[in-house]
Amino acid sequence: MLVATRNPLNIGAAARAMSNFGFLDLRVVNPHEAAFREARSAVGAAALLARAEEYRSVAEAVADCALVVGTTSGYHRELQHPLRRLEEGAQLVRGHLSSGNVALIFGSEKRGLANEDLSYCHWLLRIPTREEHISMNLGQAVAVCLYELVRDSGGTQPLPEGSLATSEALERITALLLEALGTSGYLHAEAADLRSITHNSVPRALAEEKVRRLVRRLSLSPDDAEVWLGMLRQMIWKMRSGQGPAR
Amino acid sequence: MLVATRNPLNIGAAARAMSNFGFLDLRVVNPHEAAFREARSAVGAAALLARAEEYRSVAEAVADCALVVGTTSGYHRELQHPLRRLEEGAQLVRGHLSSGNVALIFGSEKRGLANEDLSYCHWLLRIPTREEHISMNLGQAVAVCLYELVRDSGGTQPLPEGSLATSEALERITALLLEALGTSGYLHAEAADLRSITHNSVPRALAEEKVRRLVRRLSLSPDDAEVWLGMLRQMIWKMRSGQGPAR
Repeated sequence: MLVATRNPLNIGAAARAMSNFGFLDLRVVNPHEAAFREARSAVGAAALLARAEEYRSVAEAVADCALVVGTTSGYHRELQHPLRRLEEGAQLVRGHLSSGNVALIFGSEKRGLANEDLSYCHWLLRIPTREEHISMNLGQAVAVCLYELVRDSGGTQPLPEGSLATSEALERITALLLEALGTSGYLHAEAADLRSITHNSVPRALAEEKVRRLVRRLSLSPDDAEVWLGMLRQMIWKMRSGQGPAR
Repeated sequence: MLVATRNPLNIGAAARAMSNFGFLDLRVVNPHEAAFREARSAVGAAALLARAEEYRSVAEAVADCALVVGTTSGYHRELQHPLRRLEEGAQLVRGHLSSGNVALIFGSEKRGLANEDLSYCHWLLRIPTREEHISMNLGQAVAVCLYELVRDSGGTQPLPEGSLATSEALERITALLLEALGTSGYLHAEAADLRSITHNSVPRALAEEKVRRLVRRLSLSPDDAEVWLGMLRQMIWKMRSGQGPAR
């Protein structure tokens, strides 16, 4: 998945690497229109680009994905996600490829992924470049990541991971948890906890982003996601009703 | 080593990938002059390109190299050399890097390496692209090969996981969650959800066990554990108070 890509050559290069390594579903989020048009007319991966899907937001683009992995050069900001080297991260990704959709997200050439975009990710991936020159060309970064996914790891089997809840389910939990926190007064009242959730001047938007990350870090299974949805609904109902025990 | 490269963007991209992965000695053989000039003025790997050495022939360029490895997509011609997949070939290359110069040769975008060039190679390397689309972009091929050379092949290391909350913290969360579920009526009221938590005749004890497992499966960090404790406390307080927002 490419987010806010500016350079048509990079879109084309990413598509070509995908085709080389057998990953045929490209999703683009808010590409620069001219760049996307131009890339589509390029040779090399025409079929793949023709069926690429365009989205307005990362949220929509990852809705049906069970695992969402962001990419970063990893040194330039405070990361609130687990950061894995490509070698290790790819093992985890391979473990999930059979059980559900996995999104591998690449940000714009200039700025990488925005914090809002990162909040939809379960964890982040870093290509092991040397510290003196960490920033890779986008098309090359895509090629390296996909190569690592298909390379013959000769005996190092993918780790057995359970399947994960879809991003859509996680969004529902995020929304309910935000509602529960709002209803309980947590978001506005508890100064101490507030600091850990929102230490900024835009509490609500930031809270949403932080809660989204908090929920992603739980790595919920589909079954557990249902349980948490039920528990949150009941607590919200109870907080609103302000009455005795149900029934 | 790049042979007869035509596209300045590809020369620049190859140089950038070299710089990313710490291979600082670029040799170019018979580049298209304009392309090489243009690449040199590009940003990204200026220092590396400035010291790149230019040769008239592969023979001269590999003269001081102990191991010479060619690259090929590998399907389109009769090969008279051993052909190794990148994963395997890279191991051999790594084995030689400490003892002498190794040349990794990439041919022109259109035709790859000529038979004459191939004749200087000890063996050939192939990136494992899918058969339907074997031909990679030059800059991406360089990036993938160099990545394979630097990647951490110690595949069996344990994943570096973030630290986890103590069992004591998890027990406090378990207790609070049970309290919240009890207060909200979830444990006694919601028959459907009840089944997923307690489908047995000893609801309370079983619920405790299931909730304990549910909390363990979250793999919470120490910081996140504190956040969840605070959120649960506030929700319980709210359910009990049955009043308006806190404060």
